[in-house]
Amino acid sequence: MTEMREMPETQETAETIDAFHRGGFHLVQPKNGGHRAGMDAMLLASLVASGKDGMRVADLGAGAGAAGLAVANRLALAQVTLVERSARMAQFARRTLDLADNAHLAPRATVIEADVTLRGKARVEAGLPDDYFDHVIMNPPFNDERDRKTPDALKAEAHAMTEGLFDGWLRTANAILVPGGQLSLIARPQSVADIIAACGRRFGGIELTAIHPRPAEDAIRLLVTAIKGSRARLCWRSPLFMHGEDGHAFTPQVDDLNNGRSAYRRSRPVSSR
Amino acid sequence: MTEMREMPETQETAETIDAFHRGGFHLVQPKNGGHRAGMDAMLLASLVASGKDGMRVADLGAGAGAAGLAVANRLALAQVTLVERSARMAQFARRTLDLADNAHLAPRATVIEADVTLRGKARVEAGLPDDYFDHVIMNPPFNDERDRKTPDALKAEAHAMTEGLFDGWLRTANAILVPGGQLSLIARPQSVADIIAACGRRFGGIELTAIHPRPAEDAIRLLVTAIKGSRARLCWRSPLFMHGEDGHAFTPQVDDLNNGRSAYRRSRPVSSR
Repeated sequence: MTEMREMPETQETAETIDAFHRGGFHLVQPKNGGHRAGMDAMLLASLVASGKDGMRVADLGAGAGAAGLAVANRLALAQVTLVERSARMAQFARRTLDLADNAHLAPRATVIEADVTLRGKARVEAGLPDDYFDHVIMNPPFNDERDRKTPDALKAEAHAMTEGLFDGWLRTANAILVPGGQLSLIARPQSVADIIAACGRRFGGIELTAIHPRPAEDAIRLLVTAIKGSRARLCWRSPLFMHGEDGHAFTPQVDDLNNGRSAYRRSRPVSSR
Repeated sequence: MTEMREMPETQETAETIDAFHRGGFHLVQPKNGGHRAGMDAMLLASLVASGKDGMRVADLGAGAGAAGLAVANRLALAQVTLVERSARMAQFARRTLDLADNAHLAPRATVIEADVTLRGKARVEAGLPDDYFDHVIMNPPFNDERDRKTPDALKAEAHAMTEGLFDGWLRTANAILVPGGQLSLIARPQSVADIIAACGRRFGGIELTAIHPRPAEDAIRLLVTAIKGSRARLCWRSPLFMHGEDGHAFTPQVDDLNNGRSAYRRSRPVSSR
């Protein structure tokens, strides 16, 4: 984010309009409470490496749409579907698409207000058909039981980690992806075993990349990509460091990813689409 | 290894005597066939950070004893128990302890010829009692079904990865460790989910460190430590790079670990013993 405009507090909750990709697009977000999008969403979006004409990308648990719109802003041929359960956050996503600043993205973006874990007919009727999307991205909510409980209900919903969450989300991702389609997600390093287990026989060719604040520090996030139906073995890639040993500037690679100037490509190419 | 002496081929299989820790101790190993110890064993040994007087260390699947003896060579107060199922490799371990060059280690090392996955009374009678060891180290055999089968039977045994291997090995580690004791292992990155699953409720405070040949290359090994009975959350540490971007020399940190000049300490201290 490079800019933040505060809106008058005429509504129940104050909101902001935040610039991403150095002004490439903007997001209407709750000022306090709710999940506020930031670098996680931008790094997630960077995992969508390239888009052929009409490429379909689903952003599961999209919130106000940060990751999906970052994909659309970098890849001019991508069609993005923002899937969000919370009526309030879905409304922020719709208002985001109504912004004049986002007029170049709105025709390629759709908001679906639905629970990611809908199954079968209910999922299809919500607008998430089988074998449809080329790429599914997700930044699933998390909440460690040992973390302090948040008093804010909306934030709690966005961070509510429940047992089997990855299994439910990856079941949907698998169902709606075309064969050979790519799953991309960002999560906490603590979730690595749950994520691999949820990939199970659905996804293979798993690639893991840890994100460390600085070279000598523990990882704080994990980037994961996988391919529907692949049998390729797991690959543990070189880590990303957000900063160097000193200073507060981002490393050039991370700065490029954060600002939509480059993609973080898989080390092994995707076979289909 | 900094030195390799060939023995006359008078026996069924030729063997070598290899120097580790720059001559600090030596290992009798089969020249061809069987698992030949190298850097994996030295990095594993480096995970035993310090030893109080009489500290007991069990090396499960010890082969000729490389990792266990590397611990004993660096930590003059440690008692090591080498557990090896293969009669032939156990014999190499015994002959290793008989070497004059290892006279400083032999009084503190014991060889147990037993299957690591023995249970209950059979395990105890083999010399692996409950709640006995302060530290358990292991470099479990691995064999990916997609790897080519090796024609060498001994090597196949050392690399025979079977379903549930980590669960069986960690069950034994848990049984023989004192409460708060440390488990340390080295494995392939592909095993990360199996290892975390096998830790289950037995071990917590898992710390993962990936080992990459060079900064831009995929990880080839994973160092894992965990504490019996701990409930602390997983920590994904900064990686180790064996080499810099160029050249064939080890990085100073890895060279020190490989030669027994330093330990790779946990980021969070162990509470007991």
